[in-house]
Order: sequence, then structure tokens, then C-alpha cells
Amino acid sequence: MKKYKVLFQPQNLETEVPEDSTLMEAMDGAGIDFDFPCGGQGKCGKCRVKVLLGAGVPTSGELEILDEKELGSGIRLACSTRVRDNVVVELIDYKQLQHNILIASKERAFQIEPHLNKIFVEVEKPSLAAQRPDWQRVKDSLAEQGVHHPAPEVPVALLRRLPDTLRGAEHRVTAVIHGNRVVGVEGLDTTGTMLGMAFDIGTTTIVGYLLDLYSGKELAVVSTLNPQTKFGADVISRITFAGREEDGLDKLHRAVIEAVNRLIGEAAEKAGINRNLIYGLTVAANTCMHHLFIGINPRNIAVSPYVPAVGEPLVINAGELQIYINPAGKIFMLPNIAGFVGADTTAVLLATEIDRSEDIKLVIDIGTNGEIALGSGEKMVACSAAAGPAFEGAQISCGMRGAVGAIDHVCFGDKIEYSVIGGGSPLGICGSALLDAVAGLLELGMLDRRGRFIPRDKLTNSAAQMFKDNIIEHEGQRAFLLAGADKTGNGRPVVITQGDIRELQLAKGAMAAGIRVLMEIRGARFDDIKEVLLAGAFGNYLNPHSACVIGLIPLELEEKIKMIGNAAGTGSRLALLSSGEYRRASNIANIVEFVELGSYPKFNSIFAESTYFRQIP
Amino acid sequence: MKKYKVLFQPQNLETEVPEDSTLMEAMDGAGIDFDFPCGGQGKCGKCRVKVLLGAGVPTSGELEILDEKELGSGIRLACSTRVRDNVVVELIDYKQLQHNILIASKERAFQIEPHLNKIFVEVEKPSLAAQRPDWQRVKDSLAEQGVHHPAPEVPVALLRRLPDTLRGAEHRVTAVIHGNRVVGVEGLDTTGTMLGMAFDIGTTTIVGYLLDLYSGKELAVVSTLNPQTKFGADVISRITFAGREEDGLDKLHRAVIEAVNRLIGEAAEKAGINRNLIYGLTVAANTCMHHLFIGINPRNIAVSPYVPAVGEPLVINAGELQIYINPAGKIFMLPNIAGFVGADTTAVLLATEIDRSEDIKLVIDIGTNGEIALGSGEKMVACSAAAGPAFEGAQISCGMRGAVGAIDHVCFGDKIEYSVIGGGSPLGICGSALLDAVAGLLELGMLDRRGRFIPRDKLTNSAAQMFKDNIIEHEGQRAFLLAGADKTGNGRPVVITQGDIRELQLAKGAMAAGIRVLMEIRGARFDDIKEVLLAGAFGNYLNPHSACVIGLIPLELEEKIKMIGNAAGTGSRLALLSSGEYRRASNIANIVEFVELGSYPKFNSIFAESTYFRQIP
Repeated sequence: MKKYKVLFQPQNLETEVPEDSTLMEAMDGAGIDFDFPCGGQGKCGKCRVKVLLGAGVPTSGELEILDEKELGSGIRLACSTRVRDNVVVELIDYKQLQHNILIASKERAFQIEPHLNKIFVEVEKPSLAAQRPDWQRVKDSLAEQGVHHPAPEVPVALLRRLPDTLRGAEHRVTAVIHGNRVVGVEGLDTTGTMLGMAFDIGTTTIVGYLLDLYSGKELAVVSTLNPQTKFGADVISRITFAGREEDGLDKLHRAVIEAVNRLIGEAAEKAGINRNLIYGLTVAANTCMHHLFIGINPRNIAVSPYVPAVGEPLVINAGELQIYINPAGKIFMLPNIAGFVGADTTAVLLATEIDRSEDIKLVIDIGTNGEIALGSGEKMVACSAAAGPAFEGAQISCGMRGAVGAIDHVCFGDKIEYSVIGGGSPLGICGSALLDAVAGLLELGMLDRRGRFIPRDKLTNSAAQMFKDNIIEHEGQRAFLLAGADKTGNGRPVVITQGDIRELQLAKGAMAAGIRVLMEIRGARFDDIKEVLLAGAFGNYLNPHSACVIGLIPLELEEKIKMIGNAAGTGSRLALLSSGEYRRASNIANIVEFVELGSYPKFNSIFAESTYFRQIP
Repeated sequence: MKKYKVLFQPQNLETEVPEDSTLMEAMDGAGIDFDFPCGGQGKCGKCRVKVLLGAGVPTSGELEILDEKELGSGIRLACSTRVRDNVVVELIDYKQLQHNILIASKERAFQIEPHLNKIFVEVEKPSLAAQRPDWQRVKDSLAEQGVHHPAPEVPVALLRRLPDTLRGAEHRVTAVIHGNRVVGVEGLDTTGTMLGMAFDIGTTTIVGYLLDLYSGKELAVVSTLNPQTKFGADVISRITFAGREEDGLDKLHRAVIEAVNRLIGEAAEKAGINRNLIYGLTVAANTCMHHLFIGINPRNIAVSPYVPAVGEPLVINAGELQIYINPAGKIFMLPNIAGFVGADTTAVLLATEIDRSEDIKLVIDIGTNGEIALGSGEKMVACSAAAGPAFEGAQISCGMRGAVGAIDHVCFGDKIEYSVIGGGSPLGICGSALLDAVAGLLELGMLDRRGRFIPRDKLTNSAAQMFKDNIIEHEGQRAFLLAGADKTGNGRPVVITQGDIRELQLAKGAMAAGIRVLMEIRGARFDDIKEVLLAGAFGNYLNPHSACVIGLIPLELEEKIKMIGNAAGTGSRLALLSSGEYRRASNIANIVEFVELGSYPKFNSIFAESTYFRQIP
């Protein structure tokens, strides 16, 4: 049988499959975990990919689901597209379902402009007529090329290696330059290669992108759960751990450093390169993760007035943090905006370029602490909304993280339909399904504005009648039965209780209040906002319509919602590939006006109001 | 009985003694090992000290030995001067006999100008109205004082401590500045204190001076044998060890770092201060010790073309070398001139100021590798003479280091007189006694120009007749008996063999040849040389007349010899107390013209000639 190659971008994963295999099968072969909510039946349309090469003719199923514009740009359904040629596929909305890590995202135009520079020089060999020290002869050669190392401070590690480096390479060496300083000298001509890694260090997950700093090409993507999770699921519990436990800070610090080192090794192995070729790392992280990465106690972030130790961009020698890359390597920390609006938000704003936008845009990263920014090039405001863990499935009776076994989407049609991550029987629900379910209940008129279940006998909507038997008593409170005990993987029913709805109201209320306060401060009305950009894993996973129905995002903005993938990762990549973009990030962090919601006079009443649902017409 | 206080400078050692005690007894009380070659009988005149306060009337013995100028400037004999008031004594030629470490030396005029700067600031406290990061608020306060930290590089250690430092001191802190960079922030107002240590790291010994960087006052002096000695007695054997042994370099590096850390602790304890108050270290060392201190393999120094890895002044963060002082502390390495003319020579030249001298001066530091410099402000030339270990008593049949039990001085009068370090019976001879003995034999006409013993029957000098029975056969070669087996502490005779004289000829020949080559290159005749400055332990211990008689130093220059003490230590101190002097050291290292003796065309014949003795008239 004939075989074809399928190359998946941006992961650069290649596989070979027999003719007529689906892209879904090819993904399986390439080891890619991808989301097929309808099980690959071509119905849900959620497995959109972009076929860059070898797309072939769309199937009738695809013609039904995809619009003309999508088809024209190569969008296909992975479950339906059959391989009849060598194919290059871009995973436009790739989620690593194993632990729901959002990796890929679209990159915008930018200028490659490496932070570091390499210069090859032939250094004069020592002789009785040239007894100048090794380092002096290197500097003399560099001076001829216009590089004048100014400082009496030379990296000790460089000096320690220099004599052997020179003599091992017949005095033909490459100097690694940062600014106008020599930060490394290595044997032979290595100017052809310079790699870097962009990191997005989230509270839950860490993603690293190995990039060629000259071409911008992605060589590998790696990710892992943040191992700090075992010391606390969220930012606050980690801050508590750092303060309470002996060596707590050190444990958290070392956990993330080790994880990053492990990911660097993994990426190097994937790409088949030596980690020594990696010269730079950028790190986008929330302020707490930022501090823990450097080893700073984040204690003061958690208590009023929520002040970080440091905000500005920091360039740190890799060795100082025991990050194992090239010894000349530097860590470029993206700048924080405030205690709860960190460098990850800076990275998102950098990726979305709202600092140069004429239009006003709303950028939302939903999480335990949701970050919200609103503005244009003229003025940007940002805040952090303490949504709590409901969106992550925590403190929800049947809640769970978006992992295998979680109901991730719910739809009320003729019956209750739901999809389960990884297929199979459900074990619980994750945040996106909670949104869908509550939105559905609202649309069916089964909940009132305060979030209370409307008594069975008062249900007016005919569709609601169909599901009235699902309103049950569960452990002493009213609840909605999503899946009976006989349908689940653990023999327990999956329900949404009155309490769960209350939790969701608090969470969405916090987000909505944040949006409203920013709009008031920025003086922006719904009409002024041209785009709503959803960043981050949850924002890219949820059903935007559900988010609007429950009022997490104002319904007025529904049509303007765009999912922008892991924009923090994109920002980190941009800052790695371009020192100009890194400087721009610094500028963004400087000009964004941080709004402390707690200090906003009307905040409490706005928040209380925002916990209500709106009347669905 | 009445008691008085005696204070010894520069050690700052104080003691209290009964009226009429001698200074010799006071030294004993203060724990000072001092050399009394004639046993305190007021005969040899070698225990000269300078009495700064409370000198009293000289004894008749002193009037005989000391000249008017000496008496006028307070010079007295420690064995003869009696305490009849509180006395302050300067030990002008102090040797720590225990391991012959030369500590004190005279300092010249200079301007105190600290390398680091401290600025006290009251930082704005954080509030909901001032949520700027800690580091930003510190920088804002410093900017008001005109300090603008420029770099995106902030010491990680500083950031890690900053939140607690600020809050622990109610935001009243002191910034430590180097150049225009903040290198440390510490709680409360610490501007009143800034200490530093000047180190002289020799192959055999390490001396450290704890100084107040504001007043220049010496708070403590500490010294130790260089623990690297156990891996090799001299530079070459250590270089071999570093290359041959696994971890050899690391062992040598860590040995010196640990010794320095131990000395820092000792000095801090002596002065009753916390080592955290020490912000700077200067290091003067020969090139090999310099490299080993930093952790650079000195391998290439030992092989032609004898090239060091680095020469220029280096400023290294204390933490990078694991030197435990204030975390903001810096190590200021004095610059090397060449592979065998190191930063110790730079320090000597700095101390002697020949870079600004109108007169031509000859500076000699005698050792296994003797460093010689000749010049004036107009032009300086320097070389290293491979004298070998004879001056240190090695490879001499009865040779030993200048430690307790060594004959250190010999004099031929009516009989052979010698002094023994620490008193008691001799165990061997050290270099200075070898010089005295051979000079004596030459003056008695008992050796010919080639260094051979003149047969007993050909001795013409009547004094020589007295000692002809001392010419004996010893283990198959002719030898001169200094002390019979019945007079020594180990039951073996102390002799000087024909072979020993040969070794001395090679050693002194190397030095003399170096001096002659420099004079030729510099175009200087004996008359042009105004001063001969002897630096270092051996140079300050030897009898200059003996050195001239054997031709180590040209006899023509004898009257111009001055002993300048541990000038390398003095240079290190100057560079510590004054950043201007440190820059000047850099300039000296740049302008000194290094002469590779081996490349000098006539060197071999000059050397061969120089091994001969001159005819004593």
C-alpha cells in the first residue's frame, strides 16, 4: 500500500501513514493528543486544522460544517480529511489534552533581532613575541571587529575555560556578545547556530518552545505540569507554603528550576541538538511564578497592598539560576505589571499588540485569578479578578480539572449531550462544561436571576419540561443531574448542585465586575470595544456563547470574541526572537495602568450585581 | 609595681608590662614573635623598632649602635629600651618567625577613595496608592539622590532579600553602590561602616589586612601558610599537580579560597566585627596564585611562551568565588604583568611609586622566581629570574625553610657565630644564612671565583687559617662545617657543601643576570640607579652586604639598598583603600615592558658569567 508523510506544525512532528488514512489517524501515529469531541464522526466540527500542503478535496461533511473562507484558507476537519499525498498540517487550536496544556498559537509579524550576537575571530597565537594574556588577545581581535568589551567584569566561567578553548580550536573561536559585552567564547566557528527557548510558566502548566534564534523556526515544543502543584494548587496556597514550611520557598524554587531544566533537556533531545547551543531563555509567568522562578519570596503579593518585589525586565545569567544551557546564556524575564497582573499578561498584550492598536480591545485570561486588560495604543488599563477556582473545577461538587474523564462540553438538544475528554464514561465535569450546563439551564428558563432552580411546576418553557426530571435532590440540596450513576465511570452521578451554581456566580461575577470597572475607568462602551480576545487554556476551551449567556463576558460582546490561543507563550516567543519586542514588553508593562479593584469605590456593589444572571428573553 | 601599656603597630596589639620591662619582654607579652639574633644582649642591633610615643632616653649601648638620624626618628633596640611610660611601637621590620611571614611595611601617602559607595535612603512604603514593586521604589528613592542604576541586571541575591530588608527596617535602607550600579541593599543606616581586606597571596604564605575603608585604619592582620603547599612547594609543582591530578585544579582553587575565608573569619574575630561588614577584597598574587584563586588552570604559564589567561584588573562578585563577605562584596584582582611577573610585582611597583619617580630605581623580589623591575616614570622594564629553590633552603644539603631551628645568620669573627630562629640548637640553615656563610668564605678567601674551596694549604688569609679545620669531607664532597654534630638539635652536623655553593651560584647568577639584562635594555649604569628596593620576605631577611658579596646584587649598588618590607601587601592595601590607586596599578601593569630573559640574545653568556664570584680584593 502506498504511504505518505504527514508533518504537523508547529510541533514539527512527522509520521508516515497508509494512503486514505485520516489526519486523525496520522495524529495518533505522531503521538499527538488532540480533541475529537464527537469521536471523529465529522459532526462537531471541533477538530479544525489548517492543511498547508496536500489538502485535497473537502468531503461533503466538511462542506456542510466549514464556511467558504475557512475552506479557502485550508481549514479542514482532521477526522474527515484523508491523506492522498504528502501533507503538512498546522494545528491551529492544538491542546495537549493529557493535561490540557495549550501550546500553539498564531504569531504575528515581527522582526527577528537576537538578544545575543556571535562573532567569529581568529585570535593571534601566543609566541615569545606575543606574550599578551589569552583574554587580551581575544579582546584585541574583537576590537578589530568593532567590539570593545568595556567592563573589568568578565564572567569567571569564561576565563576558566578560555585557555583550553583557544588551544583546542587553534585560536579560531566565536565570541558570544550581549550588548557590548563578551559573555562567552567558544571554540571554532559556531556563528551558524544560536537557539533559544521561550517559556510560559503557568501556575498549572509549563510550556517551552525551542526556537532557532536566526530563522525563528520552531524546533520542538515541550510541556509539563508545574511540579509546584504538589505544594499547592494555586498561587495563594503556594505563597502560604513558601511562608509556612521550612525551606518552602527553596522547594518551590527548585521544583520549577528542575522542571525547566528537564524541559530543556527534553526539547534538546526532541530536536536532536545539544542543550549547549541554547543561549537565551525568555520567561513569561504570573508574578508569583516569576518570583518563585527567581527564588524571591512572593509573600507580599498576597497581602495588601499586593506589592511585587520586582517588576521590570530582568536579565539573569543562566548559571545564577542553575539553568543548564550554554554557560554564556541569559534568562530574559518579561516584566510584571502588578502583583496579580504578571509578566504573562504583559506577554499576552505583546502578542496582541493592543499597545499599537487604534481600536479598543478587551483581553481576557480566565483563571483562578483572571487577568483583564482593556485599551488601545492610547491608553490601557488592567486588573486582576479573583474568580476563585470554580473555572478549574475545584470546589464544584463533581468538578475536576480538564483531564481525561471530564465532561468538557454540554449541550441541551433533544436530550442532554456531552463530550468526555479522552472519550469513555464521564468521571466529573470541568469548568467549560459547568459553563455550558448553567448557560443551558438559563436558556431553558430553569434558573432564575439569582441562580436558584425554578420549581418544577413553574417551568414554562416546553424544552425545560423535557429535563424537569433531571432536577433532583442531591445530598440535601437541589441539583441538576447531568449523567446518572449508571452512565459514569465511577458509579456516581454527575450533578450540578445549587452550591455549584453559587460558586460559578461568584467566579463569573468577579470577572464581569472587573470588565465593567475597566470599562468605566477607560470610558469605553460596548460599541467602542472592537474585539474581545480570549487568551489562555480555559479561554480557548470554553464555549464563548455559554460564557456570554452566564454573563462572564457581556452578551453584547459575544460576536466580537476571538480565541487567541496561548498568547502568553506567543509573547514569550516574540520576546525571545526579538530584542525589540522584549523592549516593547517593557514599555507595555510601564504604560498599562493597573487598577486595584478593591480600591475602586463602587466595586462591591458592582461585584454583587454581577453575580446575578441576566434575564434570558 | 607601676604598669604601663605598650601598643604595637601596625598590628594593633596591646599589652601591659611592669615599669622597666624591656620592649622585648613586652613583645613576648603581646604574643609577637620577633627576631633577637644576639639573644637580646644589645649587641647585634637587629631588633630595631620605631618608638612613636614614650621613647625615653637611649641607653649607651643604643648610642653606640644607632646613628643620629635613627635616634632622631625614634629608632631604638627593642632588647634595650625600657618601658617608663605608655609606649607606642611601630614594628618596622616585623617578621612573623613562626613561618616567616612578612606582614608590616611602610605605607606612602595616598588619597582614600573607596571602590564602593553607600547611600542611605528612606524608601516610600507600599500602599494601595503606591503599589510599585519594591525594587522600583528603591530605585526611585536613589534617583532622587542622583543614582540611576542603569542595567537590567540586578544581583539576584539582592532581589531575593529585598522584600524582607525593606520591611524589616521600616523601609529605611542603605544602598551599596559600585560605579553607578546598586550591588546591595541593607536594612537601616549602615553608611557609617565599610570595611575591606587587602590580601597578599604568596606561594608560601597568605597575609590579609582588615582595613576601615573610610579611615584607612588597620583593624587586624592575619596570616597563614598557603595550604596549597601540601600539593607542591612552588609554582611549577602546583601547575604540575593541577594538570596531573584529577580535580587537581579544583583542589588548589578550593584550598586557597578556604584559606582566605578562614583568614577573613579570623580577622573579623580579632577586630570584633561581623564579616558581613566587609565589602571589598583586593588580591595581589603572582600570576599562578592569581589564576588558582580564580580557578583558572595556570598550565600555560609554565610552558613557552608562558602566557597567562588574563592579566588585566578583574572585578569579581565575592559570591562567584564563594568568598564569604557581604553579599554585595567585590573582589578586586590586581593586574598581572606577565606569566612570571604577576600582580604581586604590580603591587610592589604601586607601593614604591616608581611609575612617578624621576630617578631610576631597581626593585627586587627574591624568590624561586625572582621578580626584578628597573626604571622610572619614563620607562619601566621587568623580568622574572628563575633562581630555583636555593634561597628557600631547598636542594641545599642542610637547607631548610626560615622556620624555628634554622640558622638564619652567620658571621665569621673570632669564631663562627650564628643565630638560630627561635633560639636553641640549630637544625639546618635557611637561605639568608647560606648567603652569609658563602659571603664570609669569599671574604676569607676560602673560595675561588668558580666557587671551589681553596685547598687548606693554599689559604693565605690569616683569618682563613682559623677556620681551615672546618673544611672537611662530607658525604664524598668538600664542605664547610658550620656546626658540629654535638652542637645541633638533631645530632647531625650543619655543613655547606661544594654542591650547595654550586646551587647558590646558579640562583644568584639568575638574579644577577636578570639585573644586568634589564640594565642593558634600560640603558642604565650603576650610577644611574638611585635606589635598590628589596621587597618580600627573603629580601627583608637577608644581610644586604652578603647579597652583594656573593654578587646576587652588584656590589656597586650596596649602599643604595633599602628594605621595603612586604611591599606587595602594601600595594594591595593601597589598591583597596583607593580606587585611584587601583586604576594606577592597572596603568603600571600596562606600561611595564616585560622582558623574556630566555629571548634576550646574550642571556646565556650573561647568565654563565654571572654564576662566577667576583674576586674579593
